[in-house]
Amino acid sequence: MNLLRDTVHRIVPQDESYRRKAKERLDQLTMPHWALGRLMGLAVDLAGMTGSMSPRTERKAIVVMAGDHGVVAEGVTKYPQEVTVQMVLNILNGGAGINALVQLTNAEVFVVDMGVAGDLSPAKDSDRFLSRAIGPGTANIAAGPAMTRTDAVRAVETGIRIAVELGGSYDLLGTGDMGIGNTTPSSAIIAAFTGAAPADVTGRGTGIDEEQFRHKIRVIEKILQTNKPDPGDALDVLAKVGGFEIGGIAGLIVGAASMRKPILIDGLISTAGAMIAYGLAPVTADYMIAAHMSVEQGHKAALEFIGKRPLLDLDLRLGEGTGAAAAMPLVDGAVRILTQVATFEEAAVSKAEE
Amino acid sequence: MNLLRDTVHRIVPQDESYRRKAKERLDQLTMPHWALGRLMGLAVDLAGMTGSMSPRTERKAIVVMAGDHGVVAEGVTKYPQEVTVQMVLNILNGGAGINALVQLTNAEVFVVDMGVAGDLSPAKDSDRFLSRAIGPGTANIAAGPAMTRTDAVRAVETGIRIAVELGGSYDLLGTGDMGIGNTTPSSAIIAAFTGAAPADVTGRGTGIDEEQFRHKIRVIEKILQTNKPDPGDALDVLAKVGGFEIGGIAGLIVGAASMRKPILIDGLISTAGAMIAYGLAPVTADYMIAAHMSVEQGHKAALEFIGKRPLLDLDLRLGEGTGAAAAMPLVDGAVRILTQVATFEEAAVSKAEE
Repeated sequence: MNLLRDTVHRIVPQDESYRRKAKERLDQLTMPHWALGRLMGLAVDLAGMTGSMSPRTERKAIVVMAGDHGVVAEGVTKYPQEVTVQMVLNILNGGAGINALVQLTNAEVFVVDMGVAGDLSPAKDSDRFLSRAIGPGTANIAAGPAMTRTDAVRAVETGIRIAVELGGSYDLLGTGDMGIGNTTPSSAIIAAFTGAAPADVTGRGTGIDEEQFRHKIRVIEKILQTNKPDPGDALDVLAKVGGFEIGGIAGLIVGAASMRKPILIDGLISTAGAMIAYGLAPVTADYMIAAHMSVEQGHKAALEFIGKRPLLDLDLRLGEGTGAAAAMPLVDGAVRILTQVATFEEAAVSKAEE
Repeated sequence: MNLLRDTVHRIVPQDESYRRKAKERLDQLTMPHWALGRLMGLAVDLAGMTGSMSPRTERKAIVVMAGDHGVVAEGVTKYPQEVTVQMVLNILNGGAGINALVQLTNAEVFVVDMGVAGDLSPAKDSDRFLSRAIGPGTANIAAGPAMTRTDAVRAVETGIRIAVELGGSYDLLGTGDMGIGNTTPSSAIIAAFTGAAPADVTGRGTGIDEEQFRHKIRVIEKILQTNKPDPGDALDVLAKVGGFEIGGIAGLIVGAASMRKPILIDGLISTAGAMIAYGLAPVTADYMIAAHMSVEQGHKAALEFIGKRPLLDLDLRLGEGTGAAAAMPLVDGAVRILTQVATFEEAAVSKAEE
């Protein structure tokens, strides 16, 4: 646990002096005051995160954390578990949604086996595949904990190591997930932290019908009753009702924060991972950028818990990091507003009458 | 008036067969059904607009229509009129907000003098500047019509010609505006078409205080009482309470639609221009993509009038085409989803159980 503890201790809040400097410059840009709204707020955040008036965001990577879930035995999803393997291979072959959207900013896509149940040997040759499985899928959380506390720490530390490895080559990270059944542990995590009733934070995932939906809510109620996760102990929540890829996402965020790198949080599953990171150290939120508002019920409560308003609202519910990729151009836009727009003085433009 | 009439007659609705083909492909993509939400809806629109399963959007241009407004004599804005000239030059020098945001997709920025009151001779050397002034700013619409009906037609036809000129070199256009005082005619146009009370569709523009705001509402009430624009006659609305750049925007949209080119509509002023285009021919809406929801009050009513839901909601209120530029990557994303994501069959991924 030393890596996790030491990494958390290294995280510092956003640099207030750079936030102030950024605000001062943005106040002087040749436009009505703060007329680029939330993009300017994002620019202030990026200056504070990176401690720079020229935040670097050019080199981008989406990290898709993949894992399987024993809870699929409860019939909470309509896709068979083998789809996790198939979709990992599809992503590595360039055929998934995330591959289309990362091209908007030439971001790289990495896929991490955090604990997929099937055979991923065809993926081994890809230099975009990282084999870091904690185990062959979690245990069924309707019957007991997902994993041991030791494995929960291992999952988070795996994410930290990956963030640190990528941190040398990339300026801006984005989270992604792949794992059949993973909206169920995510909704359980959201219910555990927020105290919300499962019915209020459970969605239809990949598209289940009304009867399956009511069943899924009952399964999540059972998960919480069986495991009694302690919302004051993020590792307990992760171990009891989480998933390997969710722990990996949490670790990726902790690692990014420790390096003062901005990290875009994708949808429901990524935000569940962000809640674990926030539970480990609330200061990690200083480095999170919420990419989008998912259709998936529960995402709003999760974003409110970590105190984030998302950039996009496009009815996405795919995961894979697609929302993070779609929001990456806006991060670049925020940087360009800070670094490239002229001030009134620079451009000799008349100011407003006071 | 032949150019306007002939162009409107050439506009055809989106191609239903390509909309259907696009939907059929999107239904088969390796993801839960329609999991990329509004980006998939946009992909269907792009297929319908262009009549292609591989809609071209690579070559992009933002057209910033600039004009001045006699109504500034009524004290409706806190910036002096000379700022229109200064900002045109700032854009041509690369120092404005729009210059920062077009770099997200390497879009070009063109600035058109549709009727600026000041001296734009320093701009004449730029190959991104088009000198097409209808007149040296509009007349004061609080005292009478903005322009003659003949000039209204000329403004729209100028926009059409620019769209046709650019249409050979660009696949995707975006509207932009620059003109001190132009939220006032825009709110008047919105009130004229929707029947809303000026108080409900008037915003604070560049940032006026409470007293100036109440004054602006009274001025817009007076504008409507003085001119009595006929909402059933878009040229009457444009001539009486519009602006030269607003007419140019309307023409740009009509021209884009006639060439079956998608066109991103920026904020309040651009949407007022879109309402004029819609009034001239509702079918033009088939080629409009609403880029963002402005902070400016009245924008929501304007978007509802043309039947559009905007892609972004980032508290922008700048104009210049900044919202259109910020949304351009999402248009590329929609195309890539349609053209690059594998189907279940192509990727050998198992489908959901029915």
